[in-house]
Amino acid sequence: MDNKKIRQILNSVKSGKVNVKDALDSLKHLPYEDIGIATVDHHRELRHGIPEVIFAAGKEQKDIKVIAASMLEKSGKLLITKASKEVFKDVNALCKKHKVKAKYFEKSGVIMAGYAAEKKGMVAILCAGTSDIPVTEEAMATASFLGSRTEAVYDVGVAGLHRIFKAKKILKEANVLSVVAGMEGALPSVIGGMTDKPIIAVPTSVGYGTSLGGLTALFAMLNSCVPGIAVMNIDNGFGAGVLAHKINKLSA
Amino acid sequence: MDNKKIRQILNSVKSGKVNVKDALDSLKHLPYEDIGIATVDHHRELRHGIPEVIFAAGKEQKDIKVIAASMLEKSGKLLITKASKEVFKDVNALCKKHKVKAKYFEKSGVIMAGYAAEKKGMVAILCAGTSDIPVTEEAMATASFLGSRTEAVYDVGVAGLHRIFKAKKILKEANVLSVVAGMEGALPSVIGGMTDKPIIAVPTSVGYGTSLGGLTALFAMLNSCVPGIAVMNIDNGFGAGVLAHKINKLSA
Amino acid sequence: MDNKKIRQILNSVKSGKVNVKDALDSLKHLPYEDIGIATVDHHRELRHGIPEVIFAAGKEQKDIKVIAASMLEKSGKLLITKASKEVFKDVNALCKKHKVKAKYFEKSGVIMAGYAAEKKGMVAILCAGTSDIPVTEEAMATASFLGSRTEAVYDVGVAGLHRIFKAKKILKEANVLSVVAGMEGALPSVIGGMTDKPIIAVPTSVGYGTSLGGLTALFAMLNSCVPGIAVMNIDNGFGAGVLAHKINKLSA
Amino acid sequence: MDNKKIRQILNSVKSGKVNVKDALDSLKHLPYEDIGIATVDHHRELRHGIPEVIFAAGKEQKDIKVIAASMLEKSGKLLITKASKEVFKDVNALCKKHKVKAKYFEKSGVIMAGYAAEKKGMVAILCAGTSDIPVTEEAMATASFLGSRTEAVYDVGVAGLHRIFKAKKILKEANVLSVVAGMEGALPSVIGGMTDKPIIAVPTSVGYGTSLGGLTALFAMLNSCVPGIAVMNIDNGFGAGVLAHKINKLSA
Amino acid sequence: MDNKKIRQILNSVKSGKVNVKDALDSLKHLPYEDIGIATVDHHRELRHGIPEVIFAAGKEQKDIKVIAASMLEKSGKLLITKASKEVFKDVNALCKKHKVKAKYFEKSGVIMAGYAAEKKGMVAILCAGTSDIPVTEEAMATASFLGSRTEAVYDVGVAGLHRIFKAKKILKEANVLSVVAGMEGALPSVIGGMTDKPIIAVPTSVGYGTSLGGLTALFAMLNSCVPGIAVMNIDNGFGAGVLAHKINKLSA
Amino acid sequence: MDNKKIRQILNSVKSGKVNVKDALDSLKHLPYEDIGIATVDHHRELRHGIPEVIFAAGKEQKDIKVIAASMLEKSGKLLITKASKEVFKDVNALCKKHKVKAKYFEKSGVIMAGYAAEKKGMVAILCAGTSDIPVTEEAMATASFLGSRTEAVYDVGVAGLHRIFKAKKILKEANVLSVVAGMEGALPSVIGGMTDKPIIAVPTSVGYGTSLGGLTALFAMLNSCVPGIAVMNIDNGFGAGVLAHKINKLSA
Amino acid sequence: MDNKKIRQILNSVKSGKVNVKDALDSLKHLPYEDIGIATVDHHRELRHGIPEVIFAAGKEQKDIKVIAASMLEKSGKLLITKASKEVFKDVNALCKKHKVKAKYFEKSGVIMAGYAAEKKGMVAILCAGTSDIPVTEEAMATASFLGSRTEAVYDVGVAGLHRIFKAKKILKEANVLSVVAGMEGALPSVIGGMTDKPIIAVPTSVGYGTSLGGLTALFAMLNSCVPGIAVMNIDNGFGAGVLAHKINKLSA
Amino acid sequence: MDNKKIRQILNSVKSGKVNVKDALDSLKHLPYEDIGIATVDHHRELRHGIPEVIFAAGKEQKDIKVIAASMLEKSGKLLITKASKEVFKDVNALCKKHKVKAKYFEKSGVIMAGYAAEKKGMVAILCAGTSDIPVTEEAMATASFLGSRTEAVYDVGVAGLHRIFKAKKILKEANVLSVVAGMEGALPSVIGGMTDKPIIAVPTSVGYGTSLGGLTALFAMLNSCVPGIAVMNIDNGFGAGVLAHKINKLSA
Repeated sequence: MDNKKIRQILNSVKSGKVNVKDALDSLKHLPYEDIGIATVDHHRELRHGIPEVIFAAGKEQKDIKVIAASMLEKSGKLLITKASKEVFKDVNALCKKHKVKAKYFEKSGVIMAGYAAEKKGMVAILCAGTSDIPVTEEAMATASFLGSRTEAVYDVGVAGLHRIFKAKKILKEANVLSVVAGMEGALPSVIGGMTDKPIIAVPTSVGYGTSLGGLTALFAMLNSCVPGIAVMNIDNGFGAGVLAHKINKLSA
Repeated sequence: MDNKKIRQILNSVKSGKVNVKDALDSLKHLPYEDIGIATVDHHRELRHGIPEVIFAAGKEQKDIKVIAASMLEKSGKLLITKASKEVFKDVNALCKKHKVKAKYFEKSGVIMAGYAAEKKGMVAILCAGTSDIPVTEEAMATASFLGSRTEAVYDVGVAGLHRIFKAKKILKEANVLSVVAGMEGALPSVIGGMTDKPIIAVPTSVGYGTSLGGLTALFAMLNSCVPGIAVMNIDNGFGAGVLAHKINKLSA
Repeated sequence: MDNKKIRQILNSVKSGKVNVKDALDSLKHLPYEDIGIATVDHHRELRHGIPEVIFAAGKEQKDIKVIAASMLEKSGKLLITKASKEVFKDVNALCKKHKVKAKYFEKSGVIMAGYAAEKKGMVAILCAGTSDIPVTEEAMATASFLGSRTEAVYDVGVAGLHRIFKAKKILKEANVLSVVAGMEGALPSVIGGMTDKPIIAVPTSVGYGTSLGGLTALFAMLNSCVPGIAVMNIDNGFGAGVLAHKINKLSA
Repeated sequence: MDNKKIRQILNSVKSGKVNVKDALDSLKHLPYEDIGIATVDHHRELRHGIPEVIFAAGKEQKDIKVIAASMLEKSGKLLITKASKEVFKDVNALCKKHKVKAKYFEKSGVIMAGYAAEKKGMVAILCAGTSDIPVTEEAMATASFLGSRTEAVYDVGVAGLHRIFKAKKILKEANVLSVVAGMEGALPSVIGGMTDKPIIAVPTSVGYGTSLGGLTALFAMLNSCVPGIAVMNIDNGFGAGVLAHKINKLSA
Repeated sequence: MDNKKIRQILNSVKSGKVNVKDALDSLKHLPYEDIGIATVDHHRELRHGIPEVIFAAGKEQKDIKVIAASMLEKSGKLLITKASKEVFKDVNALCKKHKVKAKYFEKSGVIMAGYAAEKKGMVAILCAGTSDIPVTEEAMATASFLGSRTEAVYDVGVAGLHRIFKAKKILKEANVLSVVAGMEGALPSVIGGMTDKPIIAVPTSVGYGTSLGGLTALFAMLNSCVPGIAVMNIDNGFGAGVLAHKINKLSA
Repeated sequence: MDNKKIRQILNSVKSGKVNVKDALDSLKHLPYEDIGIATVDHHRELRHGIPEVIFAAGKEQKDIKVIAASMLEKSGKLLITKASKEVFKDVNALCKKHKVKAKYFEKSGVIMAGYAAEKKGMVAILCAGTSDIPVTEEAMATASFLGSRTEAVYDVGVAGLHRIFKAKKILKEANVLSVVAGMEGALPSVIGGMTDKPIIAVPTSVGYGTSLGGLTALFAMLNSCVPGIAVMNIDNGFGAGVLAHKINKLSA
Repeated sequence: MDNKKIRQILNSVKSGKVNVKDALDSLKHLPYEDIGIATVDHHRELRHGIPEVIFAAGKEQKDIKVIAASMLEKSGKLLITKASKEVFKDVNALCKKHKVKAKYFEKSGVIMAGYAAEKKGMVAILCAGTSDIPVTEEAMATASFLGSRTEAVYDVGVAGLHRIFKAKKILKEANVLSVVAGMEGALPSVIGGMTDKPIIAVPTSVGYGTSLGGLTALFAMLNSCVPGIAVMNIDNGFGAGVLAHKINKLSA
Repeated sequence: MDNKKIRQILNSVKSGKVNVKDALDSLKHLPYEDIGIATVDHHRELRHGIPEVIFAAGKEQKDIKVIAASMLEKSGKLLITKASKEVFKDVNALCKKHKVKAKYFEKSGVIMAGYAAEKKGMVAILCAGTSDIPVTEEAMATASFLGSRTEAVYDVGVAGLHRIFKAKKILKEANVLSVVAGMEGALPSVIGGMTDKPIIAVPTSVGYGTSLGGLTALFAMLNSCVPGIAVMNIDNGFGAGVLAHKINKLSA
């Protein structure tokens, strides 16, 4: 924002050189893009609701370290996804320096630090098979980092539905369910037939032959005969955690 | 459920022929599918959260009439999607007999009757272009029927973002946003950069050439660089309305 | 097969003009394709297990009439699929002339005549939704025509699984199950988790948006987490009926 | 299942505090999911017809060892697919401890132990080319493990059909045929024209250029002009073995 | 824009109640979206470079009439694409009232009115086959409407390249070439080998079998071995005309 | 080619005004595109080997009439594909005026006139099913028009291979085989296993479900396990006829 | 073929034990598959026109050695594709033992031995870019091995057509052209516009982005605006060589 | 061109042995391809506008060295893309010998040498995310090499639009914008709504799940609701640089 220009206008108003009507017109015709940029930037988390996150996959270890340091400096908070153990070692050392506790989730590669101690509401994450665990963990860690209480129910295959009954208490308490499944992606439909909670379906790239890298599960979920199931991108546990937290927050 | 069998067990307990432990075992080993069917059926809306809906498209008018009559009889409520004007005439007559007021949304073909007078919370539905209006209307009518207060903002194209600013009050009030867009499906990303509300993206089949019947918008939305946007099936305004209502309900 | 040629050789052997070794050579060097054609043709049903069938869709009414007449003449049996009411009128008249009773299934357009009175074994056909009925009917009519006893269970959606429990007796009696479903195609997986019978899954082209004309259901079924589910082409009720009958026959 | 609650009801019936009708009502309205879970779990193999199987691909060796040990403990039976030689060494040692004989199929990586000594009926598996052997072997080993007698016929290419004639005896004896083929996937159609047995087609990912990882063979098989051919997922020899066994069992 | 709020601030500055620094801060923190909307709106053509256009396809005739009237009122200019003859009659009458000359291109359905009399620079549009003419005409009409001089060269198939030589003068004069082709989409590559002008390739949906509605031509053009060929959406003559004009304008 | 210009140069050489070296330079620097165009045009058939053809589909009847007239005028020959009966009436009248005999093939819509009376060599066209007849007829008519002797063998399905044996004489005589098939597209492979003649496979769009408009047959043919089978576009009988004729010509 | 059985029948005829009619019936009902298998097998090359070939890719070196040895034993001829240098060393040693000269083509990995010294006719192979050379070489080596004279023209890109003019003599002499190209696959169309020879187009998997592993070139070639171009599978130089040889043979 | 032949004709004309008409005929029937080839070849850069470029990816280091040496020899200029550091070492040494300065761009692997010192006009390249930098760099380096002044604006995500405002001066100065983006590919639409400059959109293969290797971004860009955006192949920074330069040149 061109502070000088506005200051000039304001000074002219103050001194009486320019009347209010003309000053108003001047301000109105400043291209909107000139205004408030810095402000907007400062309010980034506010607008998005989500602090910046580092996707470690494909980034060099030294680069991750630099960004992580800058984020810890700025906000004392840190969420990294798809990080290797080596990255965690670096980041952990960094966190110790900042006196922030870091936590590493090995299967999904999530690192989090500076997360809210108090968790609110309840997000339940249902996981169809053992191969879906990394995505489930990413969703759970993300929602937890953002401040939601989370519970995961593992191994709820369509051919082993009785496991879901064991988790009845969790399902009743949850404000929102995230259902993670690969292969034929039928689990969200089946769960959707048993509950009135909002369901976020996450297809995984797990499968053989025509699983098509998760497209089969994705399309199956989009075509669920149970109305009102929303779908995330394939393997997008992070996105599911973000959305689940946003929904959970509403009732908290 | 085989009432006779359980009655027998209970009678045996009563008469002392069978002790409680053995009776418990007997009941426990009854295949679960024998129990509670009718109950379950009676509780259908409770479980799903959503009453039954008639998709009029592809159904014969006389069949719709019969189902609608039975639904009015049972619950006094009615939601029909993709209905023609002719279907509405029939259904309206039916509703008059049941002394229920019916409402018809011409662009989406939604008919609703017996809807809750009191609307709670707030669902905002953003519509990218004029061709996206039918899907927008279906989402809005559905959420409204289920009991949510709704507001639509029309013509919020990516190349005309200033319109969204005009609707600032609506966006602030809403608990959840549904964004309906065809073509390149960029609107949810742009809106997602401005708000921290949960966003439900609905791709529409609007477009030319490689819009691929909405697949282009669908995939673009799934790949949004803004985290936490959930996606519905192409043109699935009904599903978006259901989910938006479920989420809205949480904060109400 | 060139009977004359072989007869000549045989006569020459008989008369001593040709010795056995030379005759053997002659026969051996007759290209195998010259032998047995007529026989093979007569044994067509024997080899395939299935008599010829007329796919009425896309054929002209007069042509269907001619083929049907020739089939009735030859075998007294007739199976036509995707036939209109008009075609049935013609064929029915034809059947009356041949004193064979014809039956018409309106939803699938199947016409059958000269079918075996006695039905053996048991084929169960499960139908997910009302839009899947035509394909279900085609499967059922085909298996019945070929000599299997059939029972259909309608409206067994994934979100209404209790209906399947009502049909417990049918499922227990059946030698093979055919499960017909569109949309997300999850029903075969769910049924597969409850039974040890062979399952033939039939995807239908029912659905909206990304149902992709049945491809979504097809791929979901191929990727079932329940092992041993076989899949037919989209909407191929006829094929499912044929296979179900062949399997059913094994135990009869 | 909430034993306490039912026990209470039963005790009340016993003591006369609650009459049978009311007790029945109470039981009927217990959500069905509260009942019989353990039972169901104990009957898992009964319901599915197939014991649990370990897909070794993508699992860590130590994890496989743990699961295998638990399965041997529970049932004395073991089926593992896609296992490396190293995995077999571990599992073999384990089997020796349990005094169960383990067998390893190198091309498919199948390990089986505790399989039924007596094989019944007959499953024939036809293999189109040398690259289709691993999938063929997986199908054969699976059906054999489950208790079917199996025979494989190798190298039955469409351009070398005479090989099938050599195996005439096998084809006649078999109750069901599994046909494994890659490339253009034409073999099931050709075999289907020669037999009335149920055919399970298994496309393989073998091929170049537009074989599309087996999709070409898959679609060709789904579109066979011979009615009643069922198709498994690409490279799914295990599933084909399961289904072939289920069908074979019917006639045994 | 919330004029009142800014006026208040300005008045406070004028009256000395608020000093310049604080007023500056207040203005800076006004969300940028509150400012300048109307201005932006008035400058729409300036920003986009292109006035609004009516896509007539799928719109009702009466609606087109209303929008056209409003556009003529505002700017005296009008561009409509995919319009029927009936629409042209209506629009022509409208234009007569506004004393603007309207022109109708029958093959593409383009209507233009109020176009710049003076054309600048030169846009050449090459058309591969007779079926590509509608798209060619749309591109040509659009560029012409916006103020570019245009020349089309028809029937320049890959198998009839000599025609392009006849148009040598046109190619030399043009600042930019738009090449419209369906089927295998090879023409842009061939033209690209003969010129150093910017080339805009437009695939058309013309073709049979695997032309895939223009996808084959689209992908071929994207993969041209001649570097620097840009591609438009299938059949998007309008877009090609807009871009060609924008590029042409640069040298004019 | 600008004859005048070259004539000028030649005259100057003749008259001695220009010496040979300068004339040579002039000719050499004439952009090659200025030379020989007309010549080339006159030699069009010579270069391509195929006279121009009218694809009637999508063209207006009056336009076809004009082009046909011009072609008859120029060459006395005419080949039209996908023509309706109405078009044939017009063209037939035209041919009578030119005293050329016209022939109409109703199933494929081919019209030919002025075709070579003498047919050479032999092209065999094999047709898999009744729905493949139009494409077969188009291939046969085209090859015949160009001067090849043709024979078609109908109804050679993979499940009815014996029919091919009946046509043994035709197959032996043919120089090249064109095999037309839809559905799973297996026929070319099977025929390819029996002959050493060049095979041109033509997939048709015949089929249901996953025939994908002929793509399944196309890909199956491209992946044939028999080496050396070439594939045409879906339903491209005309192209197959052209190529078959070109190959046949080589041996004639 | 069961000689004994036929001999028995013949002897019975000779001795008068069986009359001709009954013998004829017996022979007629022998399944045709019992006859002539050995004969057929001996005539394999005759039927297919092509001796067996070893695709080395994916085969173990020791296995290749065994098969190669057996082929050299049987026919003294050998064609291997996609072979590594190591494989060639082994095979070369083998060939020396059989006193057959072996030749290795490094770019395509073709090994040939025992090839016909005399080459007939002429096959020209045009290669679009340097990345297309391996496929080109495979086609050339194959056709040469089978007995065709071959000439390759390299680097004939669409943007460098003048190179084709240099090879005019080759094109005139050739009986058939094979055109190998990746990227947009336009070369066959351009060459097709200049010649009346049969053209076999071979798409290669060369390219970036949307070349889709050669599918773009494949579809472009199938949609060529020049009639009568046949297409091979992606990268299938071997198949192109086989077909080119078969066609070339016709004129030789 | 066969100079001798034409000289002969000219001499014959001069000497009167051949008259002008016959000479004209002779010249006219010289295939046009005999003329002007060398000239054309010399003018290669002139025709294409772009000197030859070496795509290093997939080429052997020694081959690149040879081609680079030859190019330096001929033109003193060099552009290599996708080169490793090792390749750069070799090429740099080569350049030193030729006394040409070489420059290496590490992220994209571009090497350039002998580039024009003076840059004209202005090309702006906008980069959506950090993963899009290599493609951005390739576009920028290419345009710069060809003689355009370039400016890149990094990290202009749809969710961080304010960064674009900071680069306002660059956008205003630029003659053409290249927008590089992966994921949902929305950036070109948003930028397109703010400027009237020609926009070249470059999709990148950056993304997860259904980004489909860049196809999602590609299709989104093709379907932009802003008219006149042209699209390059996925990751084709080189092509974008070429086209941007060609357009920029027009105004320079």
